[in-house]
Amino acid sequence: MIPVTRPFLPPRDRLEYYLDRVYASRQLTNNGPLVQELTSRLEEHLGVENMLLVGNGTLAIQIAAKALGINGGTAVTTPFTFPATSSALAWQGVEPRYADIDSATLNLDPASAAQIVDASTNALVPVHTYGNPCAVEAFEDLARKRNLKLIYDASHAFGVDYKGRSLLRWGHAATISFHATKLFHSGEGGAVVFRDSSDLEVAHRMINFGFRDGMPVEVGINAKMSELHAAMGLAVLESVDEIIEQRCAVRNQYRRELGDWVEMPEFSADASLNGAYAPILCRDMAHRNRVREQLARGGYDSRGYFYPALGTLGLYSRQFTDAGRQQADRVLCLPIFVGLTSPQIHDICNIVKSATPDK
Amino acid sequence: MIPVTRPFLPPRDRLEYYLDRVYASRQLTNNGPLVQELTSRLEEHLGVENMLLVGNGTLAIQIAAKALGINGGTAVTTPFTFPATSSALAWQGVEPRYADIDSATLNLDPASAAQIVDASTNALVPVHTYGNPCAVEAFEDLARKRNLKLIYDASHAFGVDYKGRSLLRWGHAATISFHATKLFHSGEGGAVVFRDSSDLEVAHRMINFGFRDGMPVEVGINAKMSELHAAMGLAVLESVDEIIEQRCAVRNQYRRELGDWVEMPEFSADASLNGAYAPILCRDMAHRNRVREQLARGGYDSRGYFYPALGTLGLYSRQFTDAGRQQADRVLCLPIFVGLTSPQIHDICNIVKSATPDK
Repeated sequence: MIPVTRPFLPPRDRLEYYLDRVYASRQLTNNGPLVQELTSRLEEHLGVENMLLVGNGTLAIQIAAKALGINGGTAVTTPFTFPATSSALAWQGVEPRYADIDSATLNLDPASAAQIVDASTNALVPVHTYGNPCAVEAFEDLARKRNLKLIYDASHAFGVDYKGRSLLRWGHAATISFHATKLFHSGEGGAVVFRDSSDLEVAHRMINFGFRDGMPVEVGINAKMSELHAAMGLAVLESVDEIIEQRCAVRNQYRRELGDWVEMPEFSADASLNGAYAPILCRDMAHRNRVREQLARGGYDSRGYFYPALGTLGLYSRQFTDAGRQQADRVLCLPIFVGLTSPQIHDICNIVKSATPDK
Repeated sequence: MIPVTRPFLPPRDRLEYYLDRVYASRQLTNNGPLVQELTSRLEEHLGVENMLLVGNGTLAIQIAAKALGINGGTAVTTPFTFPATSSALAWQGVEPRYADIDSATLNLDPASAAQIVDASTNALVPVHTYGNPCAVEAFEDLARKRNLKLIYDASHAFGVDYKGRSLLRWGHAATISFHATKLFHSGEGGAVVFRDSSDLEVAHRMINFGFRDGMPVEVGINAKMSELHAAMGLAVLESVDEIIEQRCAVRNQYRRELGDWVEMPEFSADASLNGAYAPILCRDMAHRNRVREQLARGGYDSRGYFYPALGTLGLYSRQFTDAGRQQADRVLCLPIFVGLTSPQIHDICNIVKSATPDK
């Protein structure tokens, strides 16, 4: 079965180069030289400041929330994403509440978010789903007017520029995942990009037991990235431009071949693309299931990312969001990874078309 | 400067063998084959069941507490340990409260713990400090009588048997750290050993976003160990008997040469030793500082583990514990690691003696 994604493995000798350095330094963790190098190389590559590397993308959300002082209360977020965003907030004692998404972009709708902000709301946590920028100006405005903290979950948005600068520069903090399945990865890993360096300083202590100058001065945990993961990240980073180029080529072929057959989410015209996902919108759940089955029969995996809509789980919030639910029932993500060939993509497109007879 | 500890680096070709397997499986995380293999090899090596590998030893405490249903309230714990134990509880919304330690063993005193158990207490969280077993029978009794959850922080206790079986088998859960500085390590990593398999099942879901059969059914985070860290763990595990043997030899030489000069914590006669630390008890803080300075002048690092007593920080609890504070002011941990030579140990002992003139 061709998977829906496949981790990029850097050339082995490149990984070995960094492992040599780990063996030479004898430092395996605790803000070691490779973590420091990866931090500065990512900041330079992405054009951001105040980046903190952490153990994974979920810890990034937990640390961002705690460092920004979001304690208890509720956060308005999207029902249309991976459960980690809501779950990380809930774990921190911040109840996620769902506003609806924009049916075209599949991102959290700022107007809907504004409607459910109330006295309990401490934060907005929109997600740049599929690496497609949210309506950042509207959320900025809403956060300022209602005095809310604004955290973007930018887990899918590595390398995306919006109006010519990194999308990660929006919000009081933006979090990102470097999980193995992400286009840039460190095996496990993640980061927070803070707007203010003072928040970065607090977070730096929080990921290391709250230590300052060898003494604990606040509540903290261990959310550090290790040198082994930094080694993997540094090895992958050297290929990341090529990875994005190849993934965008896959995405573009899907758009070309399937654009007249199925709907697709509307991506921002002001942003660069990164090819994080290849989502299509089937007509309904029955159509989606048919496409999935026929792809599986042809040897291709596909996934209903992000089904089900999180508001329907009864787990974090009892609110319903119509567009979120409707689109979650229709969406299907097609295979996209470095190494997927053009004939394979063509084959996948033909299967999708054959499962969609009455164009 | 000779460090107080130094991470053990496994032979590089042994690490490469496991990395070959990572490259062959293309799986970098998500309960991959190496994590599964390390789990079963550790269970066999230690003689335990229901082990869950996690990202680090602090996450192990967080996951154990949450999986055992400890929500809010307070936990009785020791002021004489690394701050992570208290901080992990506090992060989870469980307030740590300090009872006093036994002056001889430096472990939490069950009688003192019993005195401060009240209606707010949900759990006991003793630490097997320096790998020296707590009074496990007394804590078992107290937990049963007062209907409390019992979690041992066994971060220092890798490989310690108590009355012929693994110390990790005590408590509703025992947590352990596999941080690079520990005698067995995976770079970053940790584990929880649960008494009941039903708690293990809950925790298994919690470290993977609360998923069961592909659907989130409860609040979870990402606390998984990656395949890279499992590779390091598997490579180190092959040397662990030798590591413990060498560390115990270091410890024994210190005891032999310094036993008449300085006090040392009293270790359980019913337990095996693992050489996790080499603590001595100076006469007072002034003596400790003098020893530290003279060691530093001789080129040897040493550390006041675990100074200061946590109750004195004003961070987690305002309680005071006399013995905890008194012993924290006196304690000093001497260098102990694989590769420290007998002449170096002898040199260290001579410096300690020379800083302790009036035997």
